Amino acid sequence: MVDYGDTFALWRAEHPEAWREYTHHRFVEGLKDGTLLREAYLTYLVQDYIFLIHFSRAWALAVTKAETPEEMRLAARTVTSLLDEELGLHIKTCAAEGLSEADLFAAREHTHNIAYTRYVLDAGHSGDLLDLLAALAPCVLGYGEIGARLARQKSGNTPYADWIDTYAGDETQSLCRDVGALIDGAMGRRLGSDPQQSPRWAALSARFETATRLEAGFWAMNLPE
Amino acid sequence: MVDYGDTFALWRAEHPEAWREYTHHRFVEGLKDGTLLREAYLTYLVQDYIFLIHFSRAWALAVTKAETPEEMRLAARTVTSLLDEELGLHIKTCAAEGLSEADLFAAREHTHNIAYTRYVLDAGHSGDLLDLLAALAPCVLGYGEIGARLARQKSGNTPYADWIDTYAGDETQSLCRDVGALIDGAMGRRLGSDPQQSPRWAALSARFETATRLEAGFWAMNLPE
Amino acid sequence: MVDYGDTFALWRAEHPEAWREYTHHRFVEGLKDGTLLREAYLTYLVQDYIFLIHFSRAWALAVTKAETPEEMRLAARTVTSLLDEELGLHIKTCAAEGLSEADLFAAREHTHNIAYTRYVLDAGHSGDLLDLLAALAPCVLGYGEIGARLARQKSGNTPYADWIDTYAGDETQSLCRDVGALIDGAMGRRLGSDPQQSPRWAALSARFETATRLEAGFWAMNLPE
Amino acid sequence: MVDYGDTFALWRAEHPEAWREYTHHRFVEGLKDGTLLREAYLTYLVQDYIFLIHFSRAWALAVTKAETPEEMRLAARTVTSLLDEELGLHIKTCAAEGLSEADLFAAREHTHNIAYTRYVLDAGHSGDLLDLLAALAPCVLGYGEIGARLARQKSGNTPYADWIDTYAGDETQSLCRDVGALIDGAMGRRLGSDPQQSPRWAALSARFETATRLEAGFWAMNLPE
Repeated sequence: MVDYGDTFALWRAEHPEAWREYTHHRFVEGLKDGTLLREAYLTYLVQDYIFLIHFSRAWALAVTKAETPEEMRLAARTVTSLLDEELGLHIKTCAAEGLSEADLFAAREHTHNIAYTRYVLDAGHSGDLLDLLAALAPCVLGYGEIGARLARQKSGNTPYADWIDTYAGDETQSLCRDVGALIDGAMGRRLGSDPQQSPRWAALSARFETATRLEAGFWAMNLPE
Repeated sequence: MVDYGDTFALWRAEHPEAWREYTHHRFVEGLKDGTLLREAYLTYLVQDYIFLIHFSRAWALAVTKAETPEEMRLAARTVTSLLDEELGLHIKTCAAEGLSEADLFAAREHTHNIAYTRYVLDAGHSGDLLDLLAALAPCVLGYGEIGARLARQKSGNTPYADWIDTYAGDETQSLCRDVGALIDGAMGRRLGSDPQQSPRWAALSARFETATRLEAGFWAMNLPE
Repeated sequence: MVDYGDTFALWRAEHPEAWREYTHHRFVEGLKDGTLLREAYLTYLVQDYIFLIHFSRAWALAVTKAETPEEMRLAARTVTSLLDEELGLHIKTCAAEGLSEADLFAAREHTHNIAYTRYVLDAGHSGDLLDLLAALAPCVLGYGEIGARLARQKSGNTPYADWIDTYAGDETQSLCRDVGALIDGAMGRRLGSDPQQSPRWAALSARFETATRLEAGFWAMNLPE
Repeated sequence: MVDYGDTFALWRAEHPEAWREYTHHRFVEGLKDGTLLREAYLTYLVQDYIFLIHFSRAWALAVTKAETPEEMRLAARTVTSLLDEELGLHIKTCAAEGLSEADLFAAREHTHNIAYTRYVLDAGHSGDLLDLLAALAPCVLGYGEIGARLARQKSGNTPYADWIDTYAGDETQSLCRDVGALIDGAMGRRLGSDPQQSPRWAALSARFETATRLEAGFWAMNLPE
């Protein structure tokens, strides 16, 4: 099991069903064994491109809400990493299918996509950095966990090895550990050494769960009904 | 046909299908002729309570983004009207069913509900007052239009006359005319006397359409599939 | 001594010098005994009009960051009270001097005025409702405390009795008690029953002090050097 | 004369006095000829460190308000450049004087410093990307212009050659041209091919002027009175 810090481990343990529904979703298993339909994968890539645009905006919002230079630098580094690197996989794969970045940027967002990204952004605007991080965590850390697991379990001939390698790779795993440490530090600095005793714990954990459920909905929206 | 100003008339005319899908939705027709299932209505009321909480937040955001005292006062008046009056119908009706305001506030938000309200809030945060107003308009003005039509067309024994009367009533209709004038004024002040010639027109009209589609999704989510 | 709740009493007690410098400023004593120059008072009224516009925006921001319907309603009521009533004193007095509301709205903001209001708004955007309330508190509650004291101590012939009566009056005093209760409730809900033990206490108290110092600067900027 | 695009040239030309007061301030001339007191320079560096922290936050806010991937990437690159490189000069110089980065981060902000950075942030929150860019422009582009001029005019023995070289250097000059192009592009995309005819032009130009005046105040606050 991946280790991305104490807070993440606690949040994940508090919502085992939602976490499993997200990280072991039929879509994910289809990436692993290669049974995911190409069409569903492409639909996903287009929507995920738009997702990552708004997700970058949410990490940029984290820069504006950070309380230390270290928090700022890590959040800024994540924005750059998302815009310059993670989007690269999407742009490259879609280009091979004849879709330019302008096409991706102009694609119509699915309602579940809108729901997830705008929920994260509003978590930041309505609360403080912790509210934002609790909503950001399931995507970043969940993808890291999924990538690590799929790298071990994938079938040799899945056509989605590129995707798996991106998220299982050192860069993503290192980012996940950094983000986990950022969350632990931010929690300690604001809630003290025993955050579970804070009156805010339940609301933060609920934000994590809501974002986790929205992630599961994001997988589902790309599959035929 | 209701008259809530020039901008609204133009936006509505540019998206006739989406507008009709929203304002003549099966849910709406069920309110009119009384065929809407009570259970669907109650599901709607609970979700709409949460919707109005976030919609009030969006109008409060408009206060922070206004450029004249008049814009501020109208937006502030709308917040108060939503929190003190419009929610009253929901609280009263739900109380009769044994649901307290605390129950309503704590209800789990439907994904389509999250999508709509957070989209509106993000329209405000990412853009200026016009972006926010374009996303706010379909709800306020659409409900006014629906209320006015249903008051003329409703069957005598629909159990949803209270709902219809609220939105057909003078208070709502007067608010709709004020909001329409606010939009026209805000457009003129920022885009000039011929807003359709502005490069921003297309994006604002697209925001109006997206919010309109999210409204249709809001009706649909309360109905059995 | 006025009683506007526990948190306010603690914050005030932690910064006695800054608090005294603000609430017993030469400007304030001039209002009390009537020695304040008319010109300084008018300069103040114009700047304070602009201040209250942005202060209303900050209370509207509080509506967007509230966590309960009660928090939302009180914050919304404060916005309305500021825009519809408190500004009335400024508009009426300035009208008697030949200045319209449009003149007030268009006046050039003093740098100290910009510093104070934008600091409060940024406290809200960068943090959560508590950060915003800590920055809002010195103005609302300090004016209430000053008004109450000056009503007892004012000389019979001060020409500034209108100002004193506005802030000593029931409406302001009642608002101050409500805001004090809002702060206590918001602190309890987020930091628990012993907020002084929270790691956030020091930062919140520092925000209160910064805003208090900016208030003192606001008085000073209207006086001849 | 530096060339950072059309919009900047127009804004600068509309406010010649404020621009000259800022770019030829006594503080600037003291950097050029070396007559600036060391103490004033160090006071400036500490305040400017805090300034740049909040300025980075403002550029991160620009990422959240951008409308194209290119706008996002340039804004994100500016955040990283400010946090990773520009702050380096301050940290290095202050370290030589015995001040750690933690000391800098914890220093008390001058009121004029608060006024400037929070004004910029609020320009972004209250308006759209153009409002934010108009408030950001004087700092970025003014420093580029000052650096370029001082590199030509500096006396051989000024101890402030490091500062001058930083802002006259290729990296800063290239960033200034990119930011100028970003502004021109953002103006064209939102206001059309003749932005001066837009009703928003006057307000945007006024924002530029206000930020320019706040820059002049920023120099002045470090000098003995």
